Amino acid sequence: MFELYKDGCLAPIVLEDAGVHGMKKMTGIFAEDIERVTGRKPEVLGEFPADEKYVIYVGLVDSQTVKNEFVNTIDVSPIEGKYETYGIFMFKNPDVEGQNVLAVIGSDKRGAVYGMFHISEAIGVSPWYFWADARVKKHSQVILDDDICMVSKEPSVRYRGFFINDEQPCLGEWLKEKYGSIRPCPEAYEKIFELLLRLKGNYLWPAMWRSDFTLDHIENAQLADEMGVIMGASHHEPCCRSGQEFQTLRKINPRYGKDWSFLSNAAGITEFWKDGLIRNKDFENLITIGMRGENDSYLMPADATLEDNINVLKKAILKQKELISEYAPSEHPQLLALYKEVEDYYYGDETTVGLKDWEVLDNDIMMLCDDNFANVRTLPDDKMRKKPGGFGMYYHFDYFGEPVSYLWINTSPLTKIWEQMTMAYDFGVRAAWIVNVGDIKNQELPLSYFLDLAYDFDKWGTEAINKTEEYTLDWFKHLGFEKSIAKKAMKLVNAYVNLNAKRKPEALRPDTYHAVHENEAMEMLDGIFDLNYEVDALFDEVKGTELEECFYQLVYYPVKSVAAINTMQLSASINSNYVRQGKKRANEYADLIKSCIRRERKLVEEFHSRNNGKWNHMQSVYHIGFTNWNDEQCQYPVSQYYNPVWDSRLVVSVADQEDFTGAHRWTRHVLNMPLCFQSKDTGVFEVANGGEKDLHYRIDWNGDWLQVTSEFSDNPVNKNDAFDVESSIFYNVKLLKDKWDGSEATVIRIYVDNGEVVADESENDGSIAMVEIKVSVADLDLTDVAEPCFLEANGCISIEAGHFAKAIASAKGEYREIENFGKTRSGMKAYPQTGRFEKEEDAPALVYNVYATEESEYTLNIYAAPSNPVVYQGKLELGVLANDGKRTIVNTIPDKGFEPWKSNSWRKGVLDQIHIGTCQLQLKKGLNEIKLTAIDPAVVIEKLVFWKSGVEERASYLGPKESVLWRK
Amino acid sequence: MFELYKDGCLAPIVLEDAGVHGMKKMTGIFAEDIERVTGRKPEVLGEFPADEKYVIYVGLVDSQTVKNEFVNTIDVSPIEGKYETYGIFMFKNPDVEGQNVLAVIGSDKRGAVYGMFHISEAIGVSPWYFWADARVKKHSQVILDDDICMVSKEPSVRYRGFFINDEQPCLGEWLKEKYGSIRPCPEAYEKIFELLLRLKGNYLWPAMWRSDFTLDHIENAQLADEMGVIMGASHHEPCCRSGQEFQTLRKINPRYGKDWSFLSNAAGITEFWKDGLIRNKDFENLITIGMRGENDSYLMPADATLEDNINVLKKAILKQKELISEYAPSEHPQLLALYKEVEDYYYGDETTVGLKDWEVLDNDIMMLCDDNFANVRTLPDDKMRKKPGGFGMYYHFDYFGEPVSYLWINTSPLTKIWEQMTMAYDFGVRAAWIVNVGDIKNQELPLSYFLDLAYDFDKWGTEAINKTEEYTLDWFKHLGFEKSIAKKAMKLVNAYVNLNAKRKPEALRPDTYHAVHENEAMEMLDGIFDLNYEVDALFDEVKGTELEECFYQLVYYPVKSVAAINTMQLSASINSNYVRQGKKRANEYADLIKSCIRRERKLVEEFHSRNNGKWNHMQSVYHIGFTNWNDEQCQYPVSQYYNPVWDSRLVVSVADQEDFTGAHRWTRHVLNMPLCFQSKDTGVFEVANGGEKDLHYRIDWNGDWLQVTSEFSDNPVNKNDAFDVESSIFYNVKLLKDKWDGSEATVIRIYVDNGEVVADESENDGSIAMVEIKVSVADLDLTDVAEPCFLEANGCISIEAGHFAKAIASAKGEYREIENFGKTRSGMKAYPQTGRFEKEEDAPALVYNVYATEESEYTLNIYAAPSNPVVYQGKLELGVLANDGKRTIVNTIPDKGFEPWKSNSWRKGVLDQIHIGTCQLQLKKGLNEIKLTAIDPAVVIEKLVFWKSGVEERASYLGPKESVLWRK
Repeated sequence: MFELYKDGCLAPIVLEDAGVHGMKKMTGIFAEDIERVTGRKPEVLGEFPADEKYVIYVGLVDSQTVKNEFVNTIDVSPIEGKYETYGIFMFKNPDVEGQNVLAVIGSDKRGAVYGMFHISEAIGVSPWYFWADARVKKHSQVILDDDICMVSKEPSVRYRGFFINDEQPCLGEWLKEKYGSIRPCPEAYEKIFELLLRLKGNYLWPAMWRSDFTLDHIENAQLADEMGVIMGASHHEPCCRSGQEFQTLRKINPRYGKDWSFLSNAAGITEFWKDGLIRNKDFENLITIGMRGENDSYLMPADATLEDNINVLKKAILKQKELISEYAPSEHPQLLALYKEVEDYYYGDETTVGLKDWEVLDNDIMMLCDDNFANVRTLPDDKMRKKPGGFGMYYHFDYFGEPVSYLWINTSPLTKIWEQMTMAYDFGVRAAWIVNVGDIKNQELPLSYFLDLAYDFDKWGTEAINKTEEYTLDWFKHLGFEKSIAKKAMKLVNAYVNLNAKRKPEALRPDTYHAVHENEAMEMLDGIFDLNYEVDALFDEVKGTELEECFYQLVYYPVKSVAAINTMQLSASINSNYVRQGKKRANEYADLIKSCIRRERKLVEEFHSRNNGKWNHMQSVYHIGFTNWNDEQCQYPVSQYYNPVWDSRLVVSVADQEDFTGAHRWTRHVLNMPLCFQSKDTGVFEVANGGEKDLHYRIDWNGDWLQVTSEFSDNPVNKNDAFDVESSIFYNVKLLKDKWDGSEATVIRIYVDNGEVVADESENDGSIAMVEIKVSVADLDLTDVAEPCFLEANGCISIEAGHFAKAIASAKGEYREIENFGKTRSGMKAYPQTGRFEKEEDAPALVYNVYATEESEYTLNIYAAPSNPVVYQGKLELGVLANDGKRTIVNTIPDKGFEPWKSNSWRKGVLDQIHIGTCQLQLKKGLNEIKLTAIDPAVVIEKLVFWKSGVEERASYLGPKESVLWRK
Repeated sequence: MFELYKDGCLAPIVLEDAGVHGMKKMTGIFAEDIERVTGRKPEVLGEFPADEKYVIYVGLVDSQTVKNEFVNTIDVSPIEGKYETYGIFMFKNPDVEGQNVLAVIGSDKRGAVYGMFHISEAIGVSPWYFWADARVKKHSQVILDDDICMVSKEPSVRYRGFFINDEQPCLGEWLKEKYGSIRPCPEAYEKIFELLLRLKGNYLWPAMWRSDFTLDHIENAQLADEMGVIMGASHHEPCCRSGQEFQTLRKINPRYGKDWSFLSNAAGITEFWKDGLIRNKDFENLITIGMRGENDSYLMPADATLEDNINVLKKAILKQKELISEYAPSEHPQLLALYKEVEDYYYGDETTVGLKDWEVLDNDIMMLCDDNFANVRTLPDDKMRKKPGGFGMYYHFDYFGEPVSYLWINTSPLTKIWEQMTMAYDFGVRAAWIVNVGDIKNQELPLSYFLDLAYDFDKWGTEAINKTEEYTLDWFKHLGFEKSIAKKAMKLVNAYVNLNAKRKPEALRPDTYHAVHENEAMEMLDGIFDLNYEVDALFDEVKGTELEECFYQLVYYPVKSVAAINTMQLSASINSNYVRQGKKRANEYADLIKSCIRRERKLVEEFHSRNNGKWNHMQSVYHIGFTNWNDEQCQYPVSQYYNPVWDSRLVVSVADQEDFTGAHRWTRHVLNMPLCFQSKDTGVFEVANGGEKDLHYRIDWNGDWLQVTSEFSDNPVNKNDAFDVESSIFYNVKLLKDKWDGSEATVIRIYVDNGEVVADESENDGSIAMVEIKVSVADLDLTDVAEPCFLEANGCISIEAGHFAKAIASAKGEYREIENFGKTRSGMKAYPQTGRFEKEEDAPALVYNVYATEESEYTLNIYAAPSNPVVYQGKLELGVLANDGKRTIVNTIPDKGFEPWKSNSWRKGVLDQIHIGTCQLQLKKGLNEIKLTAIDPAVVIEKLVFWKSGVEERASYLGPKESVLWRK
């Protein structure tokens, strides 16, 4: 027990910095943390005071006092020789009678810093106290229990950090307002470095979109060094030079030449690099090497060969290494980012040796890069993993580029980060993890998670499957929320991120979710209405507390905004369809589009003005309606107003069908509603009005085995009941098996009593204004079906991947279910995830039971996560067997032409967040066993959909809803 | 001078009916006409009163008094032996001292009736006094001058009449309200017969859409006979039986059998026909013979051969003729309508002899039929014309069927009726003319014209070219309008009918007129705005006069309605385009669509309620938005609302180009404005706002030879002038030759001062928000061009057909210009219109001068009226020669597959009201002489459009506007 603050007594800090630059600065920040809690800032002393009962000691493992005085009292051996490790000890000062010491001892500077921030968090200072207004609670006394004592592990990943990128207009305009320029100054970077270190990161790629880290302010680089942040730079910024420096400097410095080319201007470029290295040599850097074109482009013209590119790159790297060793030797390795096309140079091709076999790079970190959409690309194989330099991963939570930019909100579910980054780790990507966090704001949760995963893989990594909810819950609790609030917040955050994971807001279109099939758009809307309700209710609970702002930023704002944007686009989908069908109800959705636009805008304004405008500008990037990769041409959906005819007009449609009809005398068209007692015993039709006046109609049908109810009442409609409708009414039709007379079909007729007058109006009986719906009935004989199985309905069987009948482990692996993964429910992935199961007998398998209504060929669509192959230019295969027949190999990406970051099939995959692999299967009538067997790593199965041959596949964004699971 | 009514003395009528049935009835109507004028009804006496100074005498040429008493006083020889002829004579009664006689003497009953109605008109009773409320002016005295005296000619066409058709819901519901049933009763028919006779018609096809003329009321047939109307029936209603009679009677009369088939039910059908003939035998009928399927369908199943069809038709006709001669012999011939497919049976094919060579029909009238869209089909050749029975024409002002029904307003310009019907007449179609007038209402003018043309071809026919305006002016004057009003009314009626002639209202679509090319939609709108203004102004002059209702029905209502409907669809065109371009101005047009719908509806309600509801229901058929041939699925255009972005947003487009752009930094896109000093020295660009807030911008450019003016001022814009815009502003760009520095191009730049903030916002100068328009300049060297010629601009030369340089007559014919014809200006047609100019030297020709900017191949599109060939399965060819090269033959319809009333090429022709024939021509640089030479009859050329090879043809509905005509 350590009385840090009690009865007005505040423990001072003794800092033994042993000459380590920056320890004083960081201890000062720690002292401020204590002030945040207690209201008083402790003294930072050079040596132990004699008269204090409680003293905090900060030192390194090789500090004199530790080595000489504490050695008999505490065991610091677990820290010795480690990096970025710390111990927290509580003991009586052997040298000062009655003095209690709380010692934070680091293996090195960052170790000590992490130790201090560990205590900060323990006393209630969240890493997000500034960036997410996780307001620190004041305490009149702070007493630490013994359980504060611990010795940390070494971080799992050596370099862990984030990349501030694409910072206009949000972070940039914010910086300008708060600090005078969109180019961040040291005061701004101090907040950023602090956040990084509190999250136990150590590595930063600074903003470079519209600023130059060192060129703008040498103090930025000095401060990073002082605080212990290892500076890097992004993939195309070698030798401590930010991306735009050359463009700026070549104008004023003739020595650098004009061209960013190592062919035509090698001497100038060399000078440029050299000067950068000299300038930054005294700071701690993980120097980026390599070379790409300016502004994220190719290095050489389009007609250059692979070999040309590799050769010039090699030349540049050799020169860079020469310069580094001469002017900026460092304890850290160098880093080559295999971004976009550079991966090709790394692998080479059949005739061209790639960089991967070039020993010059053996000791450097090969920074792999995802596809910009958070799907890792090629991962190292066994041989590559042996290279001492190791591998890194450049990952994205934010991206500006093709096929759509996402610069705004958190669209990264933790389950996906877990799935992808644990796979990378298992494949040996452990040297450096960096993530593009855009403007920092809005990425708070995934950023915490990414750095925690990198810091403590044992706790959160591969073996910690399905712990992301626990993580999120903890995270909210650590921000200061009570458990009950944290739990609901976790649920709401999951909900909005899952919406974004189905499709990024910027990529949503009016036709994304189907207006008709699966009632997809309308059901999505229903879910979002609930979400809105829940977040409002929870916000009411939080309002007025210290965490109101924090909740607003992390939960309320994103949930409400994402809900508004989805509602807007879903409304546009329904609006379009209703206009096509000529239903007046279209106009309710046209209005809804408008009100969503207003609502979303109001949220932005509220975010900017709340909290005394602290976060002004932070949501000012466009969120929606990108017509291309860029927000320059962003468009809201159009509000289409259907202009009704002057009388009343009947329009009828059956759910899940594009078809619709009016009560036409001349061009009578019968609608169909195919039902089945077992697989689909209910149907829905909509009676809508396309006219100005209220529509009067009657509904009649034959047969007592059909029950019709309107959406407004559970009481069945009587035959020939009359109704009035201004807009539209939905009717549910239900089969009643016990009253069935064996008829194969019946007809529901909707008669118009006051329809519009048209040219064929007649006094004759022969032409009655009405709509006919033919209801056909199937009755499956399931008496001999022993196993539970999914029943075909209307030619389709759909199964969530997690709903397998059996999971069969092999000696070499097993399938595991990743909960809350992907677009619908969960993902099934084979483990170990580094394994490739070439042989059928080695492969873990999943078995699904399906019931086919007839012997026929079926198309099986396998929905899988939009992963990339872990092998360069590889596949994403799995095996499919029907009823223990021969294994069919299905590739969930096209066999040819799939190229992460540039092919159309890849684009579609990351926009739709799905890959669909397809095969043809011959099924027998009745029960069939379908077995999926693992082959390639990185395949995560989400859904299986069977379509009977001859049935037109009914398009929908999420795929058909799951079929009825029949059990005896 | 005849004092019909003076000082309270009213001349009585002496009717000497000589036992002619109906003379009394008709004289009674004449007496009522006099009452309409004088307020007193004259006595109708059997013999001359002794004490009257003025007596009107009505008799026939063979009346006793005429033959015996008047023979020495007046010369009735010009009437003797004629049909439907009358003389009006003024003389002293030889038998009664001091008695002045005004004698109306007919060659026959109808002659006498026409004579009486001639006087009625002369004293101010318009044929339209009832049907168009041409209110009769009361006079306190009526004195007739000698010039009332005249002897009429025999009518040019023997049977002249109209067909009441498709009468639901307008005329039908009106009849129901006024007379108790949609099936017209004798009281209703009396009004119809009266109208027919006053218009000097004699022949009627009665309503049969939902009624049965004789079956409903035998009194209908009796009344027709009494009043002197010869009853016929439409193409599929043989033997005095209306279309639905069989369907009604077969239910109650087993003798008739069940099937409408002369194969399976010949006996029943024969009985049915026989009974019809017996029933109507005593009335004056022009009996329709032949047989088609029920409800306007084919007679035999689809797999029947031509020969099968001809044979069964022959059998039926033989039986009909047998029945007619036995049960209903008549002075009139019979009539066979060659409607739709029956034309094929008439002509037969290479292996099958058609009805045309079947002598059984030699003495009957072959009723040819147009294509239902007022374009005549095959016309008789020399041999056919020799048949004694002669030919008739069934023409349409109203049609229910493919490809779009037109049941509402007058869409038939008199110039087109003149062109088509004079051609028919010249080809010998003179026995019977009948026109489908739908509900009568709305077709007042063309109906008058059609019957006047048939009655007095000498006055209005082929030689009376370009007299339709004179006709219209006279028509309005005869309705009672003063000349100045009549002139303006004529102009307004021409204007709305011309709009309808470009495209029928029912067939208008939002994409009919091009929103961009030729600024077509906007210029149409401008014209319609003027039209609205003019009709409002004129209505103000007429309001409160006796003719207010008449004006409302004939001018105000149709002009306003047609204007509203066109405005609605044109607005939809512009709305769509503005939405596509993301211009906020879109919403003004979305509103306009809505207000047009309301306005059009209000006009219908006003029409129905005015005039004490006299014409209630008459406009109740749908007028607009047919999605198919039928009004059942009619749709108004959708009002699309563009939802603006929250800041301001610049959107710029150049007139006549689909292209547009915003001020994009990343995706900069330059607009082009190609100009030429001679052919196109002005251009227009639009600066629009796509955002919520007002847009501030500046316009700048290089070069003093460009003058820019905004739409709001003639004062030129200064370089770098700043503007504000809420919605959009148009700018005119003009080349100033005298200031030209010889540059080939310059750039207009529109800089945004307060644009939206997007992700690439920058403090750097490199990315300025602006739009660039590249203005390129051409300067043609025309010094050596001697002739006036049309100049190419942007790869196109467009010429109105009437703007030929020379018209070259041949020995055999000449081209004449039909003014105010077709879609744009006038039509050029070769006369005599029966002539075919096989040989080049025989052909009349037109020469056009065009200036080509370079030697190149050009596509020449020849726009021609949507005529049909006068030869069965013939062509519509003309010859084209460039610079006296070889004649190229151009067919303005496809060489194969063009079939009037059923092929897609025909459908497109009647919807678009144009045929376009195409050929390739090699032009030299500079002046070219293009000669068109006549070949086939029925070709009416409206426009010539040349497109240079390689230039994309810019689609527009009316074709490109005429090019600049250059003169030295």
